[in-house]
Amino acid sequence: MDNWLESLKTNTAQEGFELAIKLSRMGVKYTQPDMDVLKAGRKQYADDPALLINSSQVVAIHFQTVAKANNYWTSD
Amino acid sequence: MDNWLESLKTNTAQEGFELAIKLSRMGVKYTQPDMDVLKAGRKQYADDPALLINSSQVVAIHFQTVAKANNYWTSD
Amino acid sequence: MDNWLESLKTNTAQEGFELAIKLSRMGVKYTQPDMDVLKAGRKQYADDPALLINSSQVVAIHFQTVAKANNYWTSD
Amino acid sequence: MDNWLESLKTNTAQEGFELAIKLSRMGVKYTQPDMDVLKAGRKQYADDPALLINSSQVVAIHFQTVAKANNYWTSD
Amino acid sequence: MDNWLESLKTNTAQEGFELAIKLSRMGVKYTQPDMDVLKAGRKQYADDPALLINSSQVVAIHFQTVAKANNYWTSD
Amino acid sequence: MDNWLESLKTNTAQEGFELAIKLSRMGVKYTQPDMDVLKAGRKQYADDPALLINSSQVVAIHFQTVAKANNYWTSD
Repeated sequence: MDNWLESLKTNTAQEGFELAIKLSRMGVKYTQPDMDVLKAGRKQYADDPALLINSSQVVAIHFQTVAKANNYWTSD
Repeated sequence: MDNWLESLKTNTAQEGFELAIKLSRMGVKYTQPDMDVLKAGRKQYADDPALLINSSQVVAIHFQTVAKANNYWTSD
Repeated sequence: MDNWLESLKTNTAQEGFELAIKLSRMGVKYTQPDMDVLKAGRKQYADDPALLINSSQVVAIHFQTVAKANNYWTSD
Repeated sequence: MDNWLESLKTNTAQEGFELAIKLSRMGVKYTQPDMDVLKAGRKQYADDPALLINSSQVVAIHFQTVAKANNYWTSD
Repeated sequence: MDNWLESLKTNTAQEGFELAIKLSRMGVKYTQPDMDVLKAGRKQYADDPALLINSSQVVAIHFQTVAKANNYWTSD
Repeated sequence: MDNWLESLKTNTAQEGFELAIKLSRMGVKYTQPDMDVLKAGRKQYADDPALLINSSQVVAIHFQTVAKANNYWTSD
């Protein structure tokens, strides 16, 4: 696959959260690389509260990693 | 998306818990940005014990991150 | 919401476990603040092994946080 | 509830694993304290592969906590 | 139960992964000690993608513990 | 099983993510070693949003481990 992840460093906590979202989606994309199937699936779960909660959980796990990699965006 | 996350620092543990709830909801909102769909979905899972437990789990994962970022609100 | 979480510090490991249970329930309560709906839901999942296991999992995640905040109740 | 958790310290890794199992079960018992319902539920999920895997997951999360509290049973 | 876990230390990362698999299975075995039921259940979930993914998740959680206990098999 | 995991060290964060994917798949393969069943199952879940999200979650957990083993690919 092409280069898509240069580093876990981000400038702000919000950018870190958005990186966590990207990581969650890439975890899906490696298993299902067909963009049409992916988009159809995303439409399906975007209206399904159970799947939305599950995908939010994956984001939460990745955010733990990204936040730690950035020392929680503190200057210490 | 607009600025919504300035920092992971909070003054108290309870505020940290409330930030964890916000992070959980934002994880959903990035996937489903339509507020009407979101509100309809929230009504649906608020009465469903299984979904309530799952969403409480996402909060728990984010709370781990926020608590660590705040050194567990201890003064040491 | 009223003040309900003063600190993550507890005197003993068991009190820490009980705080983890409280945190799990509060994660639900923020989404469904209606006590009558909450109590009805709790009755429902208290007899459902799958939901009991899931709620025990949320407790386990919060217990990780509380245990760490208390340095695992060791004197070192 | 009576005293049931004195400490997270155990002499061996296996005892730590067994403590993790106890913690998982106590997470259930706080929600459903009726021993008859608990035993009926346990019979139900003991024959259900999906629930067995889920309960094994809760054990895994608690084992992380117990292992860390014991510094992974290394002498360093 | 007999002695089955001497230590979390392994010589290599792969042996650590295999220990994580053993821990996952033992988490099930403590709840369902009947080997015939266990083997029947394993046959059932070995053909079920959802259960295979869930069991892989338990392995992942235990692998975090084992990897940390071995300092990630680095010499530092 | 043959040697398949030499080390958790990778040169880049993206290679670390790809190792996390490999670890997730190996967690499945140890339970279901028959490649034909595995491939049939993968086809099944690749079109199922719920299973895709679950498998992305396993990747996220392994990525935590790999990222930590590599000190988050920072030079410090």
